[in-house]
Amino acid sequence: MTTIRQETKALDLRTSRAALSRLMEPSDMVGMALIESVGPIDALRIATGQIKAGSRTSQDVAMILEAQGTISKRSSLGEALKRWAPRTADLAPDRDIATMQRLGGRIWTPEDNEWPEALLDLGIAQPICLWVRGGPSSGVPVESRSVALVGSRDSTNYGNSVTGDLAAGLVQRGICVVSGGAYGIDAQAHRAALSTGATGDVIPTIAVSACGLDRYYPAGNEDLLRTIGQQGMLIAEVPPGSSPTRWRFLQRNRLIAALCSVTVVVEARWRSGALNTAHHAADLSREVAAVPGSVHSANSAGCHRLLREGSAVCVTDAAEIAELAGPIGQSLAHEPAGRAADHDGLNLEDLLLLDALPVKSSATSEKLAGVAGLSQTAVLAGLGRLQLAGLAESIGGSWRRRKPHG
Amino acid sequence: MTTIRQETKALDLRTSRAALSRLMEPSDMVGMALIESVGPIDALRIATGQIKAGSRTSQDVAMILEAQGTISKRSSLGEALKRWAPRTADLAPDRDIATMQRLGGRIWTPEDNEWPEALLDLGIAQPICLWVRGGPSSGVPVESRSVALVGSRDSTNYGNSVTGDLAAGLVQRGICVVSGGAYGIDAQAHRAALSTGATGDVIPTIAVSACGLDRYYPAGNEDLLRTIGQQGMLIAEVPPGSSPTRWRFLQRNRLIAALCSVTVVVEARWRSGALNTAHHAADLSREVAAVPGSVHSANSAGCHRLLREGSAVCVTDAAEIAELAGPIGQSLAHEPAGRAADHDGLNLEDLLLLDALPVKSSATSEKLAGVAGLSQTAVLAGLGRLQLAGLAESIGGSWRRRKPHG
Repeated sequence: MTTIRQETKALDLRTSRAALSRLMEPSDMVGMALIESVGPIDALRIATGQIKAGSRTSQDVAMILEAQGTISKRSSLGEALKRWAPRTADLAPDRDIATMQRLGGRIWTPEDNEWPEALLDLGIAQPICLWVRGGPSSGVPVESRSVALVGSRDSTNYGNSVTGDLAAGLVQRGICVVSGGAYGIDAQAHRAALSTGATGDVIPTIAVSACGLDRYYPAGNEDLLRTIGQQGMLIAEVPPGSSPTRWRFLQRNRLIAALCSVTVVVEARWRSGALNTAHHAADLSREVAAVPGSVHSANSAGCHRLLREGSAVCVTDAAEIAELAGPIGQSLAHEPAGRAADHDGLNLEDLLLLDALPVKSSATSEKLAGVAGLSQTAVLAGLGRLQLAGLAESIGGSWRRRKPHG
Repeated sequence: MTTIRQETKALDLRTSRAALSRLMEPSDMVGMALIESVGPIDALRIATGQIKAGSRTSQDVAMILEAQGTISKRSSLGEALKRWAPRTADLAPDRDIATMQRLGGRIWTPEDNEWPEALLDLGIAQPICLWVRGGPSSGVPVESRSVALVGSRDSTNYGNSVTGDLAAGLVQRGICVVSGGAYGIDAQAHRAALSTGATGDVIPTIAVSACGLDRYYPAGNEDLLRTIGQQGMLIAEVPPGSSPTRWRFLQRNRLIAALCSVTVVVEARWRSGALNTAHHAADLSREVAAVPGSVHSANSAGCHRLLREGSAVCVTDAAEIAELAGPIGQSLAHEPAGRAADHDGLNLEDLLLLDALPVKSSATSEKLAGVAGLSQTAVLAGLGRLQLAGLAESIGGSWRRRKPHG
């Protein structure tokens, strides 16, 4: 048996991220800060005890955490290493990637072209990677074409009926319906979206899972989730084999909110997980909407609470939601203009290299190889091509990105 | 038959206002500007052609109208005089006052102590006078203890049921329920308030009528309106004998809004008179609230519209409405502090005189007699008492109000 230390040596960026996603819980802020400061490959080496974090790295991590407002005992690198240690022996990223491939799935990393731009709004709390099944090869729809429909598991006939109308109306307008794959409102949303079918190149629905995509949870939704994996898309940030925990449910909610321009709470009790999704959406400056209902229905109390507090816009049909989502096909402001142009004619290696190139500072080819997950030879060849294309420039042996026509 | 010209000569302030309220439609801005500039007594003389408006008065009226943003052909004094002329012969204010007295009612004017402070927020568009039946002799409740419940005439079972709960809950909290006496939501609100009964010195309900209080409109609500006149209060700004017109309904809505700190729309179609009341309330910086309902109910579409536009707060029970209305007994900011203290121990004549006394300028006793509607003798005696109480001071033969301890 090869040890994880031997295996890690050969891990590229993608495989490192796969391993990190098993090692670290979603939004583990120390882990995120470590990845931010040394990149995924060294972060994995440090996190698994293969190399020791230098004092500079420890300082960087502490600084990032302080900037994020995360200062607690739990948030020191030393504590985090103890937390990660028990999982180190179980890391088998190649096996996880192979498992996904057997299921017809794959892994996406922030370095991939398919990575949803919308997730950048999560800052350093964006997922280490995404495990996906189904969906178009061109990535998830841009967020202005995605709307989250969320709500109670114990939905009423009213909630089910409204959810069905809204989901069908959204898909008819070319908008993808995102939800959590749970019973109740979630299931109604996915079902209505699937039965309305895809429009153009938009997939009808995405279910964001709180557990690994090798299992269907909840079991009662197995058929539905399988269909979503075929005609829509399943997404998780935890690797295959991961069980759903309360923490992962809450973090899953942040993904739903981040992937969509509008989060609609169709039915929710006074305290409800759907409100957690709504709060994530508000934190991300996404539109939050709520569907009104009878004041006598406990299942609408959470919606009315959002409306009363001014945290949500009142919506009553798909047209109103589509209006909140903005014109179809319009990408949001944070999508860098001209990025598509930058990429034209570049091969995958060059794209990875381009993403790895710093804009404000500069990096050596050795450093770039680590960040981009490419060999030194590939990096040097790629830098030559990028320089010719006017996308990279060398300053005293160090490289940085150059804006075209800029 | 005495002509109106002969009769007018003897009219005091109260009788002048009674006559003006028949001559001028509610919110007749030229009329309001005329009253503002020369006072009710001379305004009536000018409006009835008994005296001619001086060029100074015409200028004042034009200036006031311009300040109000009311500039149109219809808004010149000359046009207004033509508009009022046909009604001049029918004026019989003493008869109108006698009619109200026969019905157990009375007339209130802005000079009266009972005049609702809340109406001052209407500016020069405050009613010329109010015709009232029933209610406490101490005036209407301060607005923080009044909430308007308004909505569709063709209310649903849901709307009726919610209205009943809200009205009962408000009255139980010592809050008076104000509405328009119409079918549907209005009638439900009044009925539930009446059946809950009064709390302490608060009357349970007020119906603001768009027609004279000598008739019950709509006829189907006759029994209800009669009971309101006995156990609650009926209010109109038009004199007995006036029929309800579309204009008067819309203006009646502004009174409902002005009298209450919160206007709640319980059920309303996309276009509904209740929304008109809500807009008046918003214009007056009053709280506007809406009750949510099924998205499938056309009778909730107007409420959802207000919520969606952010024009109303979502409320689902009486407690939430009471919270919007503010602590019980707390008067609003525009009620002059210390006014109650000023009044302590003063008789009615002195109160009228005190209200007539200018604060920033000063006035002769002749002028004060006209404004306060008192005889010269009464004015001189009253001024002496007010001076002793430290509430009035004389400056070169002219009188002005003095702030106690100020």
